[in-house]
Amino acid sequence: MHRSPFTVTTLGTGAALPARGRYPSSQLVNVGGGWYMIDCGEGTQERLRAIGFNFQRIGHIFISHLHGDHYLGLMGLISSMHLMGRQAPLHVHGPPELKEIIGLQLRASSTYLRFPMQVHAIRPESGTVLHADERVVVSALELEHRIPCTGFLFREQPGQRRLRPGRVGEVPQFRRNAVKNGEDLVLGDGTRIPNAELTLDPPPPRSYAYCSDTAYAPALIPFLQGVDLLYHEATFTTAMASRAKETMHSTAAQAALIAKEARVGKLLLGHFSSRYKSASVLLDEARPIFPNTELSSEGSEFRVGG
Amino acid sequence: MHRSPFTVTTLGTGAALPARGRYPSSQLVNVGGGWYMIDCGEGTQERLRAIGFNFQRIGHIFISHLHGDHYLGLMGLISSMHLMGRQAPLHVHGPPELKEIIGLQLRASSTYLRFPMQVHAIRPESGTVLHADERVVVSALELEHRIPCTGFLFREQPGQRRLRPGRVGEVPQFRRNAVKNGEDLVLGDGTRIPNAELTLDPPPPRSYAYCSDTAYAPALIPFLQGVDLLYHEATFTTAMASRAKETMHSTAAQAALIAKEARVGKLLLGHFSSRYKSASVLLDEARPIFPNTELSSEGSEFRVGG
Repeated sequence: MHRSPFTVTTLGTGAALPARGRYPSSQLVNVGGGWYMIDCGEGTQERLRAIGFNFQRIGHIFISHLHGDHYLGLMGLISSMHLMGRQAPLHVHGPPELKEIIGLQLRASSTYLRFPMQVHAIRPESGTVLHADERVVVSALELEHRIPCTGFLFREQPGQRRLRPGRVGEVPQFRRNAVKNGEDLVLGDGTRIPNAELTLDPPPPRSYAYCSDTAYAPALIPFLQGVDLLYHEATFTTAMASRAKETMHSTAAQAALIAKEARVGKLLLGHFSSRYKSASVLLDEARPIFPNTELSSEGSEFRVGG
Repeated sequence: MHRSPFTVTTLGTGAALPARGRYPSSQLVNVGGGWYMIDCGEGTQERLRAIGFNFQRIGHIFISHLHGDHYLGLMGLISSMHLMGRQAPLHVHGPPELKEIIGLQLRASSTYLRFPMQVHAIRPESGTVLHADERVVVSALELEHRIPCTGFLFREQPGQRRLRPGRVGEVPQFRRNAVKNGEDLVLGDGTRIPNAELTLDPPPPRSYAYCSDTAYAPALIPFLQGVDLLYHEATFTTAMASRAKETMHSTAAQAALIAKEARVGKLLLGHFSSRYKSASVLLDEARPIFPNTELSSEGSEFRVGG
């Protein structure tokens, strides 16, 4: 079965002080051909150039919180979008202070954007819908960090019903879209064929959750239930659990526990402390708890769902 | 003759939209072991890591203007200095709006710096002394750009007088510093040897001028007279002179003309438009006017003076 794309590209996997070769947080999410960015650490535009991605395709940017490693690349990206002649609207979603931070810097540089930009203040309560379009619904995940911090749940819009393979021939071409949208088929002689006979349910909507930065937060579990892919920060190993608690970050084992309790499809780890030259120690701690775990890496793309 | 170090390291040579392999503006200036930074485009801390420079050694940062390619790396650098436990004071000199831009972002991230930081508003009139310490005097150069923009003149403090090679033996060790500082030598029997008999003038103070971003600005020439090294932006070739004028940038030929009129020792070009994959076209236009011209490049170090 062909499904439209739903992928996550991790551009940076470092924490506040990235180790050599790691970069601060930023991700690209592609849902059905629509491009969304999550977080935008310093140098993100450089990373996008490195992977050859045309950043004018991004329509929405979601900023989780205002620690520098999650947003200091935003002004540069906006400025480059402007200098390269962008005309399409841009929506930025972030903490309330973000609007003034952007506005002040645009004024100081006398930059008058040639494209419409809206900066939306996020309401951080888990479940709040932050954005919806024809492809996706993005809602908030209330994280637990030293400053207000919001994760994001991307759930694709339900697809069309599928024609049952053996019944395709019965549905005239010009009625197919209606039938896929759930209508019964009425034949020329008035016979009505119920939709359920002709179609199968659409595939269940796929979903992706982004949780960084956060302490171990079991309150998230109901909101993460059954997501296909969970990105969860894993800054520390269990040996550093007290440091994790103090700085309101998670260990890899805690990330795995959340994944297990929420019965997610796959767990993706990131936001690695620079003390770990290789993140494999974090993977080794997570897998015994939640086997289907992977490490994110700079520029790698991950499929959401099967 | 051994002289204390006076060098300039160019970290980025790109303009607002850097070409691949170029980075936005930032320079390190070493005067007699004191480290100063000029401009701090996005990703500068990454460049410093790449050349293995410990950025805690920087005591003063001078920001020319508030176009993003000259300052968007500053918050990240300050944040990393903080996270790495800096205690030494940091002085930031820049346009008046910079203080609020920094303050707003520190507040939004609930960052309480553990080191003293002062943000000084620059008075941009050419000749204004912005900073002086035992090694160097830094003064302003009023540039002509679309927003207020200030260049910087670094002039080392005069050195000590040098003992004449044939007379060194006559000066007792414990009196040498005083004599080098210009005092006469009084012998045990009361004989006074005039300082001029024992010493030579110190070498003339060396100087470095940074001029980016600016339109062709002959008003600078008196202030640049005889500097050992002039960094001057050269965004465009002469074929793009009208574009240079419109955007208030310089051509390479205009940079060379300034260097020639000011009789500087050497001219260093930078801030290359991304349309030039190789900056050699800019060098080729400058050298017929001012032969002792070089291109700056990412991570290269240049000596100031002979």
